[in-house]
Amino acid sequence: MLVGPQQAGNIGMVARAMKNFGLEELWLVAPETPLTEEAYKFAVGARDLLEKARVVKTLGEALAGVHWVAATTARARDEYPGEPVTPRQVAPFLKGAAEAGQEVALVFGRERSGLTNAELDRAQFVVKIPTSAFKSLNLAQAVLLMAYELFVVEAPAQAAPAPAPKEKLETFFADLARYLIEIGYTDEKRLPHVMRAFRRVLHRAAPSEGELSLIWGLIRQGRWAMQRGVREGA
Amino acid sequence: MLVGPQQAGNIGMVARAMKNFGLEELWLVAPETPLTEEAYKFAVGARDLLEKARVVKTLGEALAGVHWVAATTARARDEYPGEPVTPRQVAPFLKGAAEAGQEVALVFGRERSGLTNAELDRAQFVVKIPTSAFKSLNLAQAVLLMAYELFVVEAPAQAAPAPAPKEKLETFFADLARYLIEIGYTDEKRLPHVMRAFRRVLHRAAPSEGELSLIWGLIRQGRWAMQRGVREGA
Repeated sequence: MLVGPQQAGNIGMVARAMKNFGLEELWLVAPETPLTEEAYKFAVGARDLLEKARVVKTLGEALAGVHWVAATTARARDEYPGEPVTPRQVAPFLKGAAEAGQEVALVFGRERSGLTNAELDRAQFVVKIPTSAFKSLNLAQAVLLMAYELFVVEAPAQAAPAPAPKEKLETFFADLARYLIEIGYTDEKRLPHVMRAFRRVLHRAAPSEGELSLIWGLIRQGRWAMQRGVREGA
Repeated sequence: MLVGPQQAGNIGMVARAMKNFGLEELWLVAPETPLTEEAYKFAVGARDLLEKARVVKTLGEALAGVHWVAATTARARDEYPGEPVTPRQVAPFLKGAAEAGQEVALVFGRERSGLTNAELDRAQFVVKIPTSAFKSLNLAQAVLLMAYELFVVEAPAQAAPAPAPKEKLETFFADLARYLIEIGYTDEKRLPHVMRAFRRVLHRAAPSEGELSLIWGLIRQGRWAMQRGVREGA
């Protein structure tokens, strides 16, 4: 999935890079360019990927039904909280999940600015490609390396149980954010920071749909109790 | 080392790919294009690699002083004899050799036709990048993947003893070929096939300079015996 790609030629090169390593489903999220003739020119033999590419308006739409999201960043560690993983570290896990029939999405950002922190927040895995001090990988090269690592995985990891699909988890996070304000856990200003911490732990836990309902129950029950007020007991 | 690169833009992209992963020495063997402004444009922040690139006329010149040669091919196995290795298989060995101060060359062929069999013959390692049935890696992408694999090696292999430098081994092979004709071992027509078999076993043996002299002695002594004729004994 390419978020906000800016140059048609790059989209073509990405398609070509993908096809070398057996990736066929290209999603374009709010592209800033149409698929011009230049895109097709750079795709060379991978024009079919462009023809069947899905174009959607939001990352949320693209991630509906997806179980695992790996998003790439080139940012320094202090610009985004949490521990990024390398393509090699995450590849066996993602391959194992895909082979078990779970939906895996690789998300890449804009040519100039990459993914926003809010977009990275949606990923269970924030992936950083190791480079020398000179880092100048273009979009298609980042896709190429990630696709290559997935292709050459020799021993896919035992798949984890499928977590709740991404859109359910996001709906939960949105509700959690509202609830944290409702109960005065934090204020609007500190909310993004607090939510990032919640996201981190829940992404790590990767709750199934059933487990997510279980957790969600805390909020639902908490609201019910608030509305009911403290009537009995201490 | 790029052998016979045809498009200046590609050379620039190769420089950029190299620098991402800490490779700095670019050699151009009989390039079919000068380093035009286009090359510099595509190099982006890796112009310095182009400025100090070495341009030579023959692969032999480029390999003088080199201990280990890894050459890439995209050909099917039946077009080139011998067992190709993957970048991942060979990377720990090459990294270990480089860290032990031995000279390692990565050789890439022409955009359209790759390396000739005679050029591949010079390599101890013939490297083939695994891809899907759709294989459409351009020159810079092949360099990128190879450089990446070397960069991310976590445990370099214990370096093997330095073998004889490439130019000595090649001089030996040339002498061996002459000798095989002299002694009627084979004829000119079958010579390339026979030599390829000798190359394979000697590349695997990776003789040191001293060991190479030892083997060479067989030829020298054989010639001496031929000239002297059979004078005594049975």
